[in-house]
Amino acid sequence: MKAVILLMDGLGDRPCRSLGGQTPLQAAHKPLFDRMATEGESGVVDVVAPGTPNGSDTGHLAILGYDPHIYYFGRGPFEALGAGIDLREGDIAFRCNFATIDREGMILDRRAGRISSSEAQRLAEDISGLAIPEYPDVKILFRPTIEHRGVLVIRGGALSDKVSDTDPHKTGVRVNIPEPLEDSTEAARTASIMKAFTEKTSEILENHPINQRRREQGFPPANVILLRGAGRFKQLPTINERYHVRGAVIAGGALYKGVCKAVGFDVVNVPTATGTYNTDLSAKVRAVVDSLKKYDLVFMHVKATDTASHDRQPAKKKEMIEKTSHAFTPIYEMGISEDLYVVVTGDHTTPSEIGEHRGDPVPIMFWGGDVRRDRVEKFDEVSCAAGCVGRIRGVDVMKLLCNYLGTVEMYGE
Amino acid sequence: MKAVILLMDGLGDRPCRSLGGQTPLQAAHKPLFDRMATEGESGVVDVVAPGTPNGSDTGHLAILGYDPHIYYFGRGPFEALGAGIDLREGDIAFRCNFATIDREGMILDRRAGRISSSEAQRLAEDISGLAIPEYPDVKILFRPTIEHRGVLVIRGGALSDKVSDTDPHKTGVRVNIPEPLEDSTEAARTASIMKAFTEKTSEILENHPINQRRREQGFPPANVILLRGAGRFKQLPTINERYHVRGAVIAGGALYKGVCKAVGFDVVNVPTATGTYNTDLSAKVRAVVDSLKKYDLVFMHVKATDTASHDRQPAKKKEMIEKTSHAFTPIYEMGISEDLYVVVTGDHTTPSEIGEHRGDPVPIMFWGGDVRRDRVEKFDEVSCAAGCVGRIRGVDVMKLLCNYLGTVEMYGE
Repeated sequence: MKAVILLMDGLGDRPCRSLGGQTPLQAAHKPLFDRMATEGESGVVDVVAPGTPNGSDTGHLAILGYDPHIYYFGRGPFEALGAGIDLREGDIAFRCNFATIDREGMILDRRAGRISSSEAQRLAEDISGLAIPEYPDVKILFRPTIEHRGVLVIRGGALSDKVSDTDPHKTGVRVNIPEPLEDSTEAARTASIMKAFTEKTSEILENHPINQRRREQGFPPANVILLRGAGRFKQLPTINERYHVRGAVIAGGALYKGVCKAVGFDVVNVPTATGTYNTDLSAKVRAVVDSLKKYDLVFMHVKATDTASHDRQPAKKKEMIEKTSHAFTPIYEMGISEDLYVVVTGDHTTPSEIGEHRGDPVPIMFWGGDVRRDRVEKFDEVSCAAGCVGRIRGVDVMKLLCNYLGTVEMYGE
Repeated sequence: MKAVILLMDGLGDRPCRSLGGQTPLQAAHKPLFDRMATEGESGVVDVVAPGTPNGSDTGHLAILGYDPHIYYFGRGPFEALGAGIDLREGDIAFRCNFATIDREGMILDRRAGRISSSEAQRLAEDISGLAIPEYPDVKILFRPTIEHRGVLVIRGGALSDKVSDTDPHKTGVRVNIPEPLEDSTEAARTASIMKAFTEKTSEILENHPINQRRREQGFPPANVILLRGAGRFKQLPTINERYHVRGAVIAGGALYKGVCKAVGFDVVNVPTATGTYNTDLSAKVRAVVDSLKKYDLVFMHVKATDTASHDRQPAKKKEMIEKTSHAFTPIYEMGISEDLYVVVTGDHTTPSEIGEHRGDPVPIMFWGGDVRRDRVEKFDEVSCAAGCVGRIRGVDVMKLLCNYLGTVEMYGE
């Protein structure tokens, strides 16, 4: 028996004035999702805890069955894994931005004019592998991801993730001096390495040919790298060890690949899955169907619903839901002819009139052969809450799904 | 104020093709249970945890208000208590089968041709009390229960339940040599006693007159005893200590009597309660009504619903539900005229098209004088989920019931 989890990022919402008081899910024309809700069982999920807004990182860990209070180690390592870096126990990883500072060191643009991925790639070639003479046993791994974004990994010797961001998260101020956040030699050493990294990369970037050309063309140079979200990687028990399934993930964004990889999923890359509005949903669905030949569980992630929420575009969110429902048809049809269970849910609520994460529960439905059929006929925040799944916790979703697959061990005799 | 818990074993189910896509509960004609659901409040129970299949032993502990993660000590001792053996702290108890081995020691039949209870009783007389010369301080208690089934208790000196089963759980192989599962003298000593027990009983059984007669009649001899489910008994706090009620249990199977006895229920034996399809439900109900004169809480167990599930007979399960609903009438009538609360539920889900335990929640209803009346009108998995009890945990059921009895202590002032 096989299963698919379809996770639409930031799916949950609240009534939107521009949608006549409906949520994007309520307003969306999504006949397939509504049919699946009619045929399956529905409920709502407190992804981490009732009333607690959670990030995509902690939300994904929970939905995959890993209590983030136990297994979350900061966002940096998940991004680094998603960017394709093979982390080792004890590595410290950061999310990074290429940014622009003026001659006085004041930040002018936190995204360096949204520098292109190809330019970032060229700059990164002169940064990754950088030697820091004061720390000869330390290895620097730097990898750009999309546009101005990237990841930094510090490896070697005693390190700590209890260090402050160098990213002040606003413009018009200086880059923060990294500080240890605890009284330990590891934290002091790590902050010192971060400081050296920042100074050395600024020197390299300031006069880099790419930046000279950007200046000539009137674009802001990418002359500093801002660090945030430090995390210390440790090996997590895999979903195969915990739930006895082999998993694959299909996603555009690095974070989602990274979280899945951290718990033992294989990453199936779909080049046209961009993690943006123009992502190729049909290609992702085809990759899901293909992957089900080899894997027990395929996790499919759609980012654009959350992007629309952060962009405060309820109508765009509604449209992305409609497109996803339509694109999902081949998986539904496969489920009709073969043994297949499907979970459709989100990782948190992002009200699209607010544009920030909130702690409202997200809708969920379970669909497949012998799932109990309740009276819910629409897949949305309010209809699902009346379903026979009731109100559950994110960390229970994976067990409820694997219970259908028959892979959860019995407790007692 | 008094209460009855009616527990139908393995009650929860999933849609069954042979019942037109309904669960046995949905398909059953059970006017009394539906009337009680209409008059009471309903919900669903994750008996141990969401999506986690549980055994009858851990399930009963939870429904009786004892978190199995704290109080479960293996199945053996519960079976032994149910068989009427008064256990002492530190006793190691096993479930046993009379089985048949050939001259080379290969297992031919794990049930010795389902030897009759009376033959097993005769064999047991020469086994219980057996002396093991190497261990003069050890006492052997052996008691047969139904047909080929029985229990063994090892008492005396330092013992451990960290020992492997001698029962290989299949035929065509040898009886397993018992092994210590931890590096302790107690486990090594216990495994050694198990080995001596197995050898000595095989000698006794091989030439026993009962077996000589069975061979003459063409039946397989009961010439070995297989051991499984080791557990170390410890005294549990009683329901009277924890919930301030005096309890009685009415059940056919030994396990259910045993779990109840372990937490301080008195066992009321009903000779015609067999734990099989032909159990005398009316006699059990009469015993419940009688016992309510003396006890605050009577626990009534019906095994046949689970047996039908394991036998993959949805229609038989439906029939047993219908019979139980009908037989329950005198208790309902007593509740109309006197103060009586009733809980009806199960201990786990056994989908009757699968024939194994699964982790889906089970339906529950609370009925009695001042119970809140919700809009549920049918007692089944889906209808109950819409009731005002919502989705609860097994370990909370006893408190919710005793809350109606007014025996739960207030927390705070």
